Formats: sequence, structure tokens, C-alpha cells
Amino acid sequence: MCELLGMSANVPTDICFSFSGLMQRGGGTGPHRDGWGIAFYDGKGVRAFHDPKPSIDSEIAHLIKEHPIKSLVVISHIRQANVGSVCLENTHPFIRELWGYSWSFAHNGQLDPRLYDELTLRFYRPVGTTDSEFAFCWLLGEIRDAFPERPDDISPVIDLIHERCERLRGYGVFNMLLSESSLLIAYCTSKLSWLTRRTPFGQARLMDEDMIVDFCHETTDSDIVTVIATEPLTHDEPWTPVKKGQLTVFKGGIDAEYRYSAQQE
Amino acid sequence: MCELLGMSANVPTDICFSFSGLMQRGGGTGPHRDGWGIAFYDGKGVRAFHDPKPSIDSEIAHLIKEHPIKSLVVISHIRQANVGSVCLENTHPFIRELWGYSWSFAHNGQLDPRLYDELTLRFYRPVGTTDSEFAFCWLLGEIRDAFPERPDDISPVIDLIHERCERLRGYGVFNMLLSESSLLIAYCTSKLSWLTRRTPFGQARLMDEDMIVDFCHETTDSDIVTVIATEPLTHDEPWTPVKKGQLTVFKGGIDAEYRYSAQQE
Repeated sequence: MCELLGMSANVPTDICFSFSGLMQRGGGTGPHRDGWGIAFYDGKGVRAFHDPKPSIDSEIAHLIKEHPIKSLVVISHIRQANVGSVCLENTHPFIRELWGYSWSFAHNGQLDPRLYDELTLRFYRPVGTTDSEFAFCWLLGEIRDAFPERPDDISPVIDLIHERCERLRGYGVFNMLLSESSLLIAYCTSKLSWLTRRTPFGQARLMDEDMIVDFCHETTDSDIVTVIATEPLTHDEPWTPVKKGQLTVFKGGIDAEYRYSAQQE
Repeated sequence: MCELLGMSANVPTDICFSFSGLMQRGGGTGPHRDGWGIAFYDGKGVRAFHDPKPSIDSEIAHLIKEHPIKSLVVISHIRQANVGSVCLENTHPFIRELWGYSWSFAHNGQLDPRLYDELTLRFYRPVGTTDSEFAFCWLLGEIRDAFPERPDDISPVIDLIHERCERLRGYGVFNMLLSESSLLIAYCTSKLSWLTRRTPFGQARLMDEDMIVDFCHETTDSDIVTVIATEPLTHDEPWTPVKKGQLTVFKGGIDAEYRYSAQQE
């Protein structure tokens, strides 16, 4: 399997602390030695780094850890390969353009090969050989087919994504993170937990490395930052598990799902 | 304007030496302070770095200079903005997927705004606001429209690209580099020069930095490496200017254009 890490914030925030913990699982405290990747949104642009080497050995991972890149939305992944060899093109997050937005996607889980026969790719093709990239290409093609243009109200798109994620769940474990630049969309079929940090900020201690941060010194009172990960990354903080089958949408660090629910009522 | 740098090789080769020269032009010996980017192919995968900061000030650019990334095909660009603000999404090279390949594109020049009205985008949309990304989206959409699948013989695709580049030339200066992973396709309307290094290897001295490399010590006898750039990067080497309106295709470090010409005769 793999591990996912996502971030949504209301001010540009670096993810160094959480990334330090995740990196340790990439061949250190965890077995995910088959590459890693991370996508940082900056406006509509996305800065992505991919490396098929274990994250603990990766020079680029060390650069990211040491030179904070600030962002409102981040998606990261460390890989333990099951389907598809260890190579650059099989490294998450995968990125495709839809509506003039760069969508990025990372997946934790494994899907039944039946999906290759049963799901039809419309617009996007995988470059690599993972079930994950196939699922992403299908999902994004479904969105594009139903919504050739970005609608003003994004809620029916979120509903469609939820419905298609439910179909993908029929093929196996499908925990995923998805973004188009402003929203962080998370879907869970087995393991994902999230945590929102806001005032009053306290201390947090990484589980995977001997590292403590006191967020009082790193933040202002108006900052809101949500972190979502396969497994909680810190002690001393109240992580909330995402329910199985739940789609959660964060915007500006806040759980925005209620907006869609509210609009549907 | 901007500067382009491309590489095609028959063995994985680092581009540190040429990149060192190019970087100096990004705010040092040249005025191209508005960002830079580079795409390294590794099999079908592509590792891309983009930074809207001047390359001489960029930590990532220094990382690339110091930690050689070996590749068969590289496309790089340093930007001096004319159309589109200085931001991440306006930073070349731009990347889109077609046929399950990651196509990357960088452009030097400026195009008349008439192109926005006269050319119809079919499949791909710009994320940013440059004329360059618009031209790339149009060009790739034209390829996709004519060739929904990758043909076994790529030569009619090359002919189509050449014809569409000629149309783009009608809008202004259009020097570009394009790749799908194995081919390095270059089109010139004003300035591009290339150089093939092969045995017997000699010494080269950068124009933009006090740096000399003796390629004898860096290579084996079977290595063939072609470098293409807006302006020659070295003294002491026989750079060949690309003719205006010429499309040149390199594969494995060798000028492969004759193959297409030969097939057309």
C-alpha cells in the first residue's frame, strides 16, 4: 500500500513538519520505498516533484524539507508498489488538465483488474501502468464528459465525484486525494484521518521522527490549516478519522462539505 | 524574449554543464529574470521543475546544477515575460498528455493576439495566460484531432507539426522545443543553434560562466549528445544554426529529420 498526505490552508503554509514525518515512512519507519511525490499549488499553477527513489534517500525530498515551499493546497504520496513497476511515470501524484485547471490525484489502495475492462477511458490515458493512474484518468474523463465547462456552482461536480468514487470502491481499496487548485477533495474506503490546526495553537510531536513544533511561533491567529493523512502523523493532537465511503472537501483549511449538503437540502 | 535549451542523447546524460550556462542568463549575464523551468524525461515519465524566481536565485536550480539528473531528452526555458504575468502557471515548459505520453513544450518568441480569435482550441486549455501555452494547447489539439491514436509511423505526425508551426509563424516569432519522451522536436523562426558532441570528444568553455569541461573524462566512445539552444552556449565548438522555418527532429542524439524527408521522396 501507500501513504497519502494532503493539506488545505487559508494562508500560504509550508508542509515541512508533516512532510518530515511522512518522509520517514518512505524507507525509514515505514516500508514505502518505491518512490514519492508531492504537488504544491501556487495560484492555478502547480509545482510537482516526483522521485522513484525512497524519500529518505532523496535529495529533492531533503530540499523540500529544508526550503519551505508555501502553498494553500498540497497533495503528497509515498509509494509501496503493488500494481506497476517502480519508475517515474508510476509515481503519484498524477496531473492532468481539465477546464484550464491542473488536477492532481494520489491514491492509496489496490483495485481489481476488472476495472480495465469495465471502465471506459474517454479523454485521458495513463502514461504509466498503475491502477491508480487508470482510475484517475477514468474519474477525470467522467467529470469532463458530464461537465465540459466548469460550472459556477461546483456542488454537482462534487456529487458526481462522490458517485464515481463509490463505483471505484466496488473494485477494492480506494482512498484518494484530489485537487484542482482551491479544493482538497478526499475520499476514504479504509484509512484517512484529518486534523485542523487553528487558534489557540499548541505543540505537536511527530510520531515518526524526534521533532516537536510549537505552532504558536509559526502562525498568526487567523491561520487555519487542515492536514489529512493515511495515519495520524502526530501525538498530542485530536485526529478525526474519515468515515468509510465519505467524501470530504476542504477549502481554505475548512471542511467545506456542508456547503454542498446544505445546497442539496 | 526567452531562452530555450534542449538535449537529446543516446545514453542517459546530465545537462549540468549547459544548464550552468543557461542559468547565468536568468538574471546574471542575461535579462531573463521571470522564471525558469526544465523537464527531464526518464522513460515515459517526466520530471519537471518550475520556478517563477530568477534562475540565478533559485534553490531548485542550484540543486539541479549540483545533483546531476541523467536523461535522454531534456527541455529547459528561462523566461523574460512579455505576454502573461510572472507566476508559476506561466512558467515553461508546459506539459499535457496525449496518447498516454507526456508532451512538454517551451517557446521563445511573441505571437500576435489575433491567434486567440483565429485558432480554435479542441481538447486542451491553457492554465496560465501566455500566448505560448495557448499555442501549445492548439498544436497538441491539432495533433490529437488528426491522430486520435499514435500511429506506428510517426512521420505524418511530424509533417503535421511542421505545417502547424508554419501557421503559428504567421503570428510572430515562434521558436519552440517539443517532446513526447523519445523525440526532441525543434522549430525555428529566428534563433536556435545546435551542436552534436561525439567521439573524439574535446574541451568546451562556457560563454556565460568561467567553466571548462573536458568531455573525454565524462563520456564513453559510443555517447552521442546533441544540445540545442537559442544562442550557442560554448566557445570552441561548431554550433549549427537552425534555418528559419526548419523543423528538426533529434532522436538518441542524432538529427533524425532525414528519415522523414527520405520517406517523402
